Amino acid sequence: MKLQRYRHDSPVSYTLGATLTYEMLKEKPELVKRLFIRPSTDRESGIGEILALAAEKGIRIEESEKAFNILSPKGNCYLIGEFEKREERLKPGNHIVLVNPSDAGNMGTIVRTAAGFGFGDIAVIRQAVDFFDPRTIRATMGAAFHMRVEYFDTIEDYIKKFGSNERYAFMLTGSTPLPAAEKREPYSLIFGNEATGLPDRFADFCTAVRINHSGAIDSLNLPMAAGIAMYEFTKNIWNQ
Amino acid sequence: MKLQRYRHDSPVSYTLGATLTYEMLKEKPELVKRLFIRPSTDRESGIGEILALAAEKGIRIEESEKAFNILSPKGNCYLIGEFEKREERLKPGNHIVLVNPSDAGNMGTIVRTAAGFGFGDIAVIRQAVDFFDPRTIRATMGAAFHMRVEYFDTIEDYIKKFGSNERYAFMLTGSTPLPAAEKREPYSLIFGNEATGLPDRFADFCTAVRINHSGAIDSLNLPMAAGIAMYEFTKNIWNQ
Repeated sequence: MKLQRYRHDSPVSYTLGATLTYEMLKEKPELVKRLFIRPSTDRESGIGEILALAAEKGIRIEESEKAFNILSPKGNCYLIGEFEKREERLKPGNHIVLVNPSDAGNMGTIVRTAAGFGFGDIAVIRQAVDFFDPRTIRATMGAAFHMRVEYFDTIEDYIKKFGSNERYAFMLTGSTPLPAAEKREPYSLIFGNEATGLPDRFADFCTAVRINHSGAIDSLNLPMAAGIAMYEFTKNIWNQ
Repeated sequence: MKLQRYRHDSPVSYTLGATLTYEMLKEKPELVKRLFIRPSTDRESGIGEILALAAEKGIRIEESEKAFNILSPKGNCYLIGEFEKREERLKPGNHIVLVNPSDAGNMGTIVRTAAGFGFGDIAVIRQAVDFFDPRTIRATMGAAFHMRVEYFDTIEDYIKKFGSNERYAFMLTGSTPLPAAEKREPYSLIFGNEATGLPDRFADFCTAVRINHSGAIDSLNLPMAAGIAMYEFTKNIWNQ
């Protein structure tokens, strides 16, 4: 297949770097199409284990300088994985819901933190950054391969499917302070766009929660707010 | 004074952008040396209020394309503030302590979050990223000007000065889960380097605290761990 720079409508995406590629090979080998290795890379030291795992799974390994020039022109990585983009349906249970997230790095950090607190399902409401963008995948540091991520056109489409979840919308104007929110499972923790937050109307169909802080800042940044909420909602599980 | 790209040993640093410069003018006008404005910028719309404030404080405004080429070659900003780097001594009370932080963006995010949870004092143990680096200052989104930041050569130097603070060291191997930690004031919340964390020996002179999470990730990222710890330690203040 012809190689070109990653695009939203491409059927494949890429793991840039050895650690990330290893994580994918362990967790989702069925998605991996091939690996690219930089010519004259020492195949024994460091990446020997990765190449052995790939060989065991019958995955092709191509030496190609060109692949690195196209896919990681500024990077200093020497191993890239190509994988099939396959959107998974969410499972019933507790969900993270991101409404119009716009930054690949932020989304990656949220995916990583969500995996850390035991979440396996993230709903994303469009318009939104591309979960499969190599920059997002890289920012998850491998947690992308532990997560189901499903896109919806509107929040109503999400609610149509998971309407019985208790909904908590995180808003600067929320009436319920985070520690006081009753945690009723299964739940959806809902976060808005980096710059604009959630529209006011979310308070009509969600418990509107705020994370209290001083007036020295306008708001916490999005991954921070999401991480603190996930910590508070799951701490009884992780600290029994 | 001759303009050159920012260096660690420069006596001045820069706020790149209008919002950041405005925050500095409001909070720390005594540090501001001059402002640079891109030639042919409309002085009425948007930045009129900032220029009026600068004029009121007697701060010089220079039109200079060159300043932007030197200080923000890739940026699209049209206002830069030059300020005197003045390290402040910490005040007694609750502190954040960063041991060998290496990333400007992470340090900026931690400063912003700390300001949000009411902290005014951050100790930084060398080797460490430069708080005054324009990239750090920008990542704080203005919170830099609400914070005292003092550098120490070793953790022992810090303890010599603030030995009566209760010390909590955040470590993956910590024996005390965060929610169970007794919060005794005044305290120091201590965080290690992004890649290596804190040395084991910190458990000898601190309460070693861990933030429990699943095995799907190696660790939370540094700003996330710091933000969750600050939330937990201050939530009784912010949610009375």
